[in-house]
Amino acid sequence: MIVVMKTSATEDQLKHLVKHVESLGLKANVLRGTERTVVAAIGDERVIGVTALESIPGVDNVMRVLAPYKLASREAHTETSTIRAGSFEVGGKAIGVIAGPCSVESEEQIVATAKAVKAAGATALRGGAFKPRTSPYSFQGMKEDGLKLLATARDETGLAIVTEVVSPEDVDLVAGYAEVLQIGARNMQNYRLLEACGRADAAVLLKRGPSATMDELLLAAEYILDGGNSRVMLCERGIRTFEAHTRFTLPLASVPYLQQKTHLPVVIDPSHGTGHTYMVSSLAKAAIAAGADGVIVEVHPDPENAKSDGYQTLSCEAFATMMAECRRIAEAVDRTL
Amino acid sequence: MIVVMKTSATEDQLKHLVKHVESLGLKANVLRGTERTVVAAIGDERVIGVTALESIPGVDNVMRVLAPYKLASREAHTETSTIRAGSFEVGGKAIGVIAGPCSVESEEQIVATAKAVKAAGATALRGGAFKPRTSPYSFQGMKEDGLKLLATARDETGLAIVTEVVSPEDVDLVAGYAEVLQIGARNMQNYRLLEACGRADAAVLLKRGPSATMDELLLAAEYILDGGNSRVMLCERGIRTFEAHTRFTLPLASVPYLQQKTHLPVVIDPSHGTGHTYMVSSLAKAAIAAGADGVIVEVHPDPENAKSDGYQTLSCEAFATMMAECRRIAEAVDRTL
Amino acid sequence: MIVVMKTSATEDQLKHLVKHVESLGLKANVLRGTERTVVAAIGDERVIGVTALESIPGVDNVMRVLAPYKLASREAHTETSTIRAGSFEVGGKAIGVIAGPCSVESEEQIVATAKAVKAAGATALRGGAFKPRTSPYSFQGMKEDGLKLLATARDETGLAIVTEVVSPEDVDLVAGYAEVLQIGARNMQNYRLLEACGRADAAVLLKRGPSATMDELLLAAEYILDGGNSRVMLCERGIRTFEAHTRFTLPLASVPYLQQKTHLPVVIDPSHGTGHTYMVSSLAKAAIAAGADGVIVEVHPDPENAKSDGYQTLSCEAFATMMAECRRIAEAVDRTL
Amino acid sequence: MIVVMKTSATEDQLKHLVKHVESLGLKANVLRGTERTVVAAIGDERVIGVTALESIPGVDNVMRVLAPYKLASREAHTETSTIRAGSFEVGGKAIGVIAGPCSVESEEQIVATAKAVKAAGATALRGGAFKPRTSPYSFQGMKEDGLKLLATARDETGLAIVTEVVSPEDVDLVAGYAEVLQIGARNMQNYRLLEACGRADAAVLLKRGPSATMDELLLAAEYILDGGNSRVMLCERGIRTFEAHTRFTLPLASVPYLQQKTHLPVVIDPSHGTGHTYMVSSLAKAAIAAGADGVIVEVHPDPENAKSDGYQTLSCEAFATMMAECRRIAEAVDRTL
Repeated sequence: MIVVMKTSATEDQLKHLVKHVESLGLKANVLRGTERTVVAAIGDERVIGVTALESIPGVDNVMRVLAPYKLASREAHTETSTIRAGSFEVGGKAIGVIAGPCSVESEEQIVATAKAVKAAGATALRGGAFKPRTSPYSFQGMKEDGLKLLATARDETGLAIVTEVVSPEDVDLVAGYAEVLQIGARNMQNYRLLEACGRADAAVLLKRGPSATMDELLLAAEYILDGGNSRVMLCERGIRTFEAHTRFTLPLASVPYLQQKTHLPVVIDPSHGTGHTYMVSSLAKAAIAAGADGVIVEVHPDPENAKSDGYQTLSCEAFATMMAECRRIAEAVDRTL
Repeated sequence: MIVVMKTSATEDQLKHLVKHVESLGLKANVLRGTERTVVAAIGDERVIGVTALESIPGVDNVMRVLAPYKLASREAHTETSTIRAGSFEVGGKAIGVIAGPCSVESEEQIVATAKAVKAAGATALRGGAFKPRTSPYSFQGMKEDGLKLLATARDETGLAIVTEVVSPEDVDLVAGYAEVLQIGARNMQNYRLLEACGRADAAVLLKRGPSATMDELLLAAEYILDGGNSRVMLCERGIRTFEAHTRFTLPLASVPYLQQKTHLPVVIDPSHGTGHTYMVSSLAKAAIAAGADGVIVEVHPDPENAKSDGYQTLSCEAFATMMAECRRIAEAVDRTL
Repeated sequence: MIVVMKTSATEDQLKHLVKHVESLGLKANVLRGTERTVVAAIGDERVIGVTALESIPGVDNVMRVLAPYKLASREAHTETSTIRAGSFEVGGKAIGVIAGPCSVESEEQIVATAKAVKAAGATALRGGAFKPRTSPYSFQGMKEDGLKLLATARDETGLAIVTEVVSPEDVDLVAGYAEVLQIGARNMQNYRLLEACGRADAAVLLKRGPSATMDELLLAAEYILDGGNSRVMLCERGIRTFEAHTRFTLPLASVPYLQQKTHLPVVIDPSHGTGHTYMVSSLAKAAIAAGADGVIVEVHPDPENAKSDGYQTLSCEAFATMMAECRRIAEAVDRTL
Repeated sequence: MIVVMKTSATEDQLKHLVKHVESLGLKANVLRGTERTVVAAIGDERVIGVTALESIPGVDNVMRVLAPYKLASREAHTETSTIRAGSFEVGGKAIGVIAGPCSVESEEQIVATAKAVKAAGATALRGGAFKPRTSPYSFQGMKEDGLKLLATARDETGLAIVTEVVSPEDVDLVAGYAEVLQIGARNMQNYRLLEACGRADAAVLLKRGPSATMDELLLAAEYILDGGNSRVMLCERGIRTFEAHTRFTLPLASVPYLQQKTHLPVVIDPSHGTGHTYMVSSLAKAAIAAGADGVIVEVHPDPENAKSDGYQTLSCEAFATMMAECRRIAEAVDRTL
């Protein structure tokens, strides 16, 4: 940790700071520059509460040196982890493809979608049963009935099931039906939920919150890993910016960044990441070209009558076309699809 | 709802759209402009799933006309609601002032803080017992023991208690100790928690998520109101922007905006909203001048040894000075403090 | 234009608004909904000053229906325009590749770079002679001497020259040396400069400002087109967001969005768009996969001794590797490189 | 400057870095931590090109220690500077108030406004003659004719004139008519313009760009100060964020931040900072409560017929009311108005 003192800081303030740093178990190196004095505090800055240093008189600002996460770090584990969950595998040479509707609506809808996306090459089926919705007046999902329909679709196709869990008390129920628990963007910092997923016997797809920094995302993953569940994959689904012509802004630099910092596989969501059907295929291809390990895409047999997210959903035909195009990109980066 | 057609839209696409709009129970008015055709769909756009309209061929974009919330709307309830919870009142002429440490750490700490903030004019005591923390390695709060210490501090001072609840299963426990349940920024869209607070016998302080729009904030409040709990106050605590010299950017235009759109009282948090002790007093004064109904401020007897948030916490003395200054501003806007 | 009235609007306010709309030469359609009255104002909303409508009593908000630009619109010109400037062509099947250093530093440096990037497949050479620098204490560029060195590099390689112009009075000077005038992100709304480039005999590469909306970018292009210069290409180089692990956030959804709205070719800058050397190649590939018409990349023979932007610059060898990878992606989307 | 090495950095990479740092004239202190090695480079990091350090093998990231600006710094000049320009003074006990229309439209309009704002207590008159407009089809200002009308208004009222200059070649012309040259947000990084204003015999009001960091704003001021013009005031007019219910987000934490870092006075623009007439008064009061040295407000005798910015403009009556309210706030913070 680097502590930069104010130019106006007194010797007494400096001494007080050094004493405080040492009381935290860190070693303090005082470096006197031409204009400023800097104190380099050496030791493990993660396990101690250091934020209060900024409130000490004479301190201007404090910079961290170490990444705040450990288990998620690529330093500990230099190869990308391969996560397996039923038919689904992500992190190896093959691109993982999760596809399906925003919401499970009926047996007919989910089974037809499952068959279509499998035929096009998807390796897992997504579908929401517990739906977190912005408005209390919107469709809230079929809940356990939806989970049962997802299980039916798996029985028919063999596809692994990816579905959202919104509350710690539902984790066991959902894990009874699904191979992959999705933690949605709104719940990325719902720590009780993260802890419950850390104890679950299922893989976890952790979506980045729309204003989460990379450190916050990796610390959220750390909660799950720290709970004993090592099967975590990260999902970039777009961030909130001033842009209004897309629902969110999808930053694909997250792919090389995360691949440098963590061993967890990276999945991109071009549906939420753009919010417009006509952009999904372009961004799916871009994600694979950027090196993503997987994609997750919303697909529905009849998008204009979908109960949610129709504006960003592909028809089964459009998804098949997208997959044919993505396969060519995958080959061009020595991956398979 | 206003549907703007593409210039390339065909008559068949227009007919298909009109039929779809009518099938949703809305009346479709077709307006042919010099370059574009617009369809105005009249009726209650809230209760039907309309998002899928954008995926209909020939549609360029869709604009909402009605606010998506009802119970929170100022149209239904033209005066600001006054919320009462023990010693605390907000929404009337008096500015509500909530003060206290980020985390409850010990009886000595919380009681000393309570006495000091009461002496300075605070009308409620804040203190975290269940702490949502970005890192699993940070102090996680004293949990129920912390709630008991808050109750002790109330017994000593008479101040109402404001404390965070992070999970639906804790709502009854926390409501047994506190007059006001705080829903933190990270949980603003934790709908199970909102629903549980909607059934609770306590007031609710709902913090805006750092990337939540105003509609999302008001719809989160709508979940609580719709559950039957009318004692909801909104808290602006800063949004995430590109600015790095503050922890968050505190947008005080939220005050006049919310006062135009909703009857719920508005509380400002200049501590989280800036992230720097030296800025808190300026922004607290600004909030009151802008018309805020209340402020919530972090105060600790010894900020440099606080277990969390020390960098944005006032000492008891600094808080007393801030209150004296705020009192003058309150008088200048015909409020009391 | 759609004008939404407040629920509290009176009949007199409505009449006053209708009269005002008609005085602007638009036709007013009054639509009475269940809760709100909406006035659809039909006609060309571009050429009249309409912003003041929001200040009329009883008006809640105003929504535009028409795009505010005309010449840049894809409605007028349904195919992507191909822009040619010396050896450089962009907008057709071949991906245009502009490469070179941030700043021209010496004849040896610029000629060596030109030869290397040409050998790797670049079709134009970039290099800054007039440098807009954040600090007055930073290297400000070689100015006309730099332009002369660029001309030497063109003579040696045949590559078209792309270089920045920062002031209207320099446009003729720069156009005397360069095939393509670059308008930097900081000058996207320097209207005098746009007007001067509109009269120039050179193609223009217009970079998006870091907080410009798409409408603002297209209206900036409109200034140049309106001046009579039709050879305009747009460059997405990243936007300012809360993300701190990249210099800017590069939104590749700009590619499909712009291709739907305008006929002008779209070039992506993965160097400024990420700010980190190690990310450039991933994002260049992603850009091409997303459908970009060109890329612009910073290359220097010795990045660690570059006078500017070294942290985001590729060595000549790294650029050659990037090009080999990009060529495979181009083929996978039926383009050439 | 602090250079953090990667955990994987080799001894040779460290040696290479140290040599490079020393070749720049800085002293390198190597600090070996438990997990990372850090190199503290001591000396004046401003005058050398240091950005390329990040591209050196083995380097993870580089943190600045010194502020990049000098003349603007409060370290050099510990009291707020008082800027005087005709009737206008800002930086002392009295709050400077600049008011007037977005655009000068006619003699009648500008003289009437000048008289009204003076009567209400304004100390300078604003009015645009050279208008930078987003669309080429919008009203572009009356140019020199507008300047003449401003001079007439000054003759009638004695108010100092604040007006925008958009191009270096106009600086002398505009300075011939106005006491204060305004540099608009779009031109904050138009360095030629900054340099020209640095040589002008007029005060300068420098507006923050909507995505400029504080360092960028202060470095833009540094260009003017470095040119020899010490009469610079800074204007916060809002930043671009995801918020859509305001035109920009107005961050009042800029006031205490700038007052800690610079001696230049700080003026707040609640008109552009909100974009809505009904919010202006609240935010003007908040700005003064936060400690701002001045405010700049758009006022027009007939906002609904203003040629620009009507939606955020106060009528003369509304301005008088605002001033009465602001005067009470000014007194509550021991200032005058």
